[in-house]
Amino acid sequence: MESMEELGKRAKVASRKLAVLSKDEKNKVLKGVAGALCDASEKIIEANKKDMENARANGMRPAMMDRLALDEKRIKDMADGVSSVADLPDPVGDVINEWKRPNGLEISIKRVPIGVIGIVYEARPNVTSDAFAITFKTGNACILRGGSDSIYSSVAIGDVIRESLKNQGVDPDCVQVVDDPDRKYVTEMLHLNDYIDLIIPRGSESLINHVVKNSSVPVIETGTGNNHVYVDEYADLDMAVDIVDNSKTQRISVCNALETVIIHSSLLDTFLPRLTDRLKEKDVQMRGDERALAADNRLVAATEEDWSTEYLDYIIAVKTVDSIEEAIEHINRYNTGHSDAIVTQNKENAEKFLNEVDSACVYVNASTRFTDGGEFGFGAEIGISTQKIHARGPMGLEQMTSVKYIIKGTGQIR
Amino acid sequence: MESMEELGKRAKVASRKLAVLSKDEKNKVLKGVAGALCDASEKIIEANKKDMENARANGMRPAMMDRLALDEKRIKDMADGVSSVADLPDPVGDVINEWKRPNGLEISIKRVPIGVIGIVYEARPNVTSDAFAITFKTGNACILRGGSDSIYSSVAIGDVIRESLKNQGVDPDCVQVVDDPDRKYVTEMLHLNDYIDLIIPRGSESLINHVVKNSSVPVIETGTGNNHVYVDEYADLDMAVDIVDNSKTQRISVCNALETVIIHSSLLDTFLPRLTDRLKEKDVQMRGDERALAADNRLVAATEEDWSTEYLDYIIAVKTVDSIEEAIEHINRYNTGHSDAIVTQNKENAEKFLNEVDSACVYVNASTRFTDGGEFGFGAEIGISTQKIHARGPMGLEQMTSVKYIIKGTGQIR
Repeated sequence: MESMEELGKRAKVASRKLAVLSKDEKNKVLKGVAGALCDASEKIIEANKKDMENARANGMRPAMMDRLALDEKRIKDMADGVSSVADLPDPVGDVINEWKRPNGLEISIKRVPIGVIGIVYEARPNVTSDAFAITFKTGNACILRGGSDSIYSSVAIGDVIRESLKNQGVDPDCVQVVDDPDRKYVTEMLHLNDYIDLIIPRGSESLINHVVKNSSVPVIETGTGNNHVYVDEYADLDMAVDIVDNSKTQRISVCNALETVIIHSSLLDTFLPRLTDRLKEKDVQMRGDERALAADNRLVAATEEDWSTEYLDYIIAVKTVDSIEEAIEHINRYNTGHSDAIVTQNKENAEKFLNEVDSACVYVNASTRFTDGGEFGFGAEIGISTQKIHARGPMGLEQMTSVKYIIKGTGQIR
Repeated sequence: MESMEELGKRAKVASRKLAVLSKDEKNKVLKGVAGALCDASEKIIEANKKDMENARANGMRPAMMDRLALDEKRIKDMADGVSSVADLPDPVGDVINEWKRPNGLEISIKRVPIGVIGIVYEARPNVTSDAFAITFKTGNACILRGGSDSIYSSVAIGDVIRESLKNQGVDPDCVQVVDDPDRKYVTEMLHLNDYIDLIIPRGSESLINHVVKNSSVPVIETGTGNNHVYVDEYADLDMAVDIVDNSKTQRISVCNALETVIIHSSLLDTFLPRLTDRLKEKDVQMRGDERALAADNRLVAATEEDWSTEYLDYIIAVKTVDSIEEAIEHINRYNTGHSDAIVTQNKENAEKFLNEVDSACVYVNASTRFTDGGEFGFGAEIGISTQKIHARGPMGLEQMTSVKYIIKGTGQIR
């Protein structure tokens, strides 16, 4: 592979041309790319076979193998994804605010592309086309570095997109897929401040932490969700059972799944046994503090470590509190700032929780599983930010843009 | 000093209490702090004398000594600054957007404080009270690390603010001034991801680069401005002379000052001599490319290095181009993304420049010296961002906030 710096330079050049394309031009190109992906199914499936063979040889788990596998249907879904991004409203060029100063200067703030975005991700090859669609739609060039497990698939998808861009008269360097799995290229990416404006890591906690700790390029931290549902003393208990169950078990492996349920002590004898009945049906292991254990002997003992663990498994921690204040304190101490919910019929407690819990998404009487760009109505999502800078929570197209001040004068000086 | 981690923990605790104060409560506290600063003039001047003695002993330049010195008038100005921040509109709590999903979920986006902000700055002691006022107003706790040159003054100002907070029943750990000049505490700050949400460096290029390169906490890069004015072939030449002169000489040491003037080749014989006449009055050295030199022998030869130098001095680089495209290319290659202007009477060229130049602030027919929170009407400014993430250009109160998604349901599950 060439040096990462070369990729960066070319991306920067491509990004300047891309930034001045009109909304219509970008959408037309995206539709063209969607068609090209469908047309190239065979070639992509061929490349994917190599990844699958390696995965089998490396003893990859079946669930992971399934996420890696591509067939005609999945490639059609990828193409539909690209096409649907074309149909979304394009925030680039929008004027957010404008005003006139007493000296006559006319100032406006306009949405512009960020420039070059680096995305570091893991096994799923469809991220390649998703990430391309969102960055291209918002006028950004991207450098994609997928996991080594899916490298043949990602590079093949990248090649099809680049070919299609070229055929449509667009600089193919708007998207570049790193085709060498050597980790040193990731390290180089993280320090390419002159050419990359933003890095987004997507994947496991260890990948995200590596990027956050080592990048001098600005990063948007995505992902980890140690989420809570607090069942308040004023909760509707039927609703609470449903919400805890759904948040925990509807899909256990995702970042918006529930990990700790907090129960008001007045509900230990009424609510907890009902919750245990429900969760036992789904073989969820429940790890409780002393009071929860005393109230229901089907629980096992939790340790301090449980409060800060993102299980992503059929396990839930159960914490008892005597007040909403104590619940909020526990959450703010152990959460990762992702998604936390209260179940209550008491308006004052709901407001207190929504105000004081420090998370990207705070809920009253709903499942934490709704933290998702699609569920929020954004149409597309590049990830869920758990930091407070630039973007927080599900990131749609708008979060892939920056702004520019435009100042028009008639010769003003200071 | 205690460990940085201790300061971080206490700041995080204080930030949670501060985040729930009402707008009125915060404003009242700021007015109280302003009064306390005036009342403590004598004590602050006493501390400042120690810094001044050290500065003298270390042979500090008179201009720097002047920026360091405090007297009753300057402390009054600091207090007025704090008081005027109290009078500004408070963005915290504003609902930016709200919508209802087909499943009945009500989603809103609310402005919230960022949390804990670390500010690393250099000599000027008034930054201590300015930074406190802006962060407190927006509900953020701050950890301030000033330059070693002003450490006695900064700590004294910090003590007065903390004392006043305590007297008003507010956690004094909303502001903590690092009282040990050892650089290791800066390094610790830059890695305190668990407690600090954002670092803002203010000062020299080397300080800013150090922070950007070494921080794992998110950073907003401020400052460096290698700014350009392009005098288009359709420029009003009187206006162009005034704008170049003002941008370059009105205050040479600041980041929004001009460094390179780009001249359309058709103007070499008409405009350049007039510009030289004006700039020579102010003893500005002009470093030109070959064609500029040939047109006016009062210029000296520029080297490649000049195009990327932020002089902050009575020096200007002069570049000749044959087209607006060439001017834009030069700017996008060498600028730092701060402030760039075109002088032209041609609307098409103006629009092209505004669209294609990649800078935080792009101007037509006005001085680059207007890139400033005060000049933009923000009332207060914490710095000028030259990055594209979170904030770009002058940062007022709004840029010191994050957002939170609030989702209200009636039992919705997926």
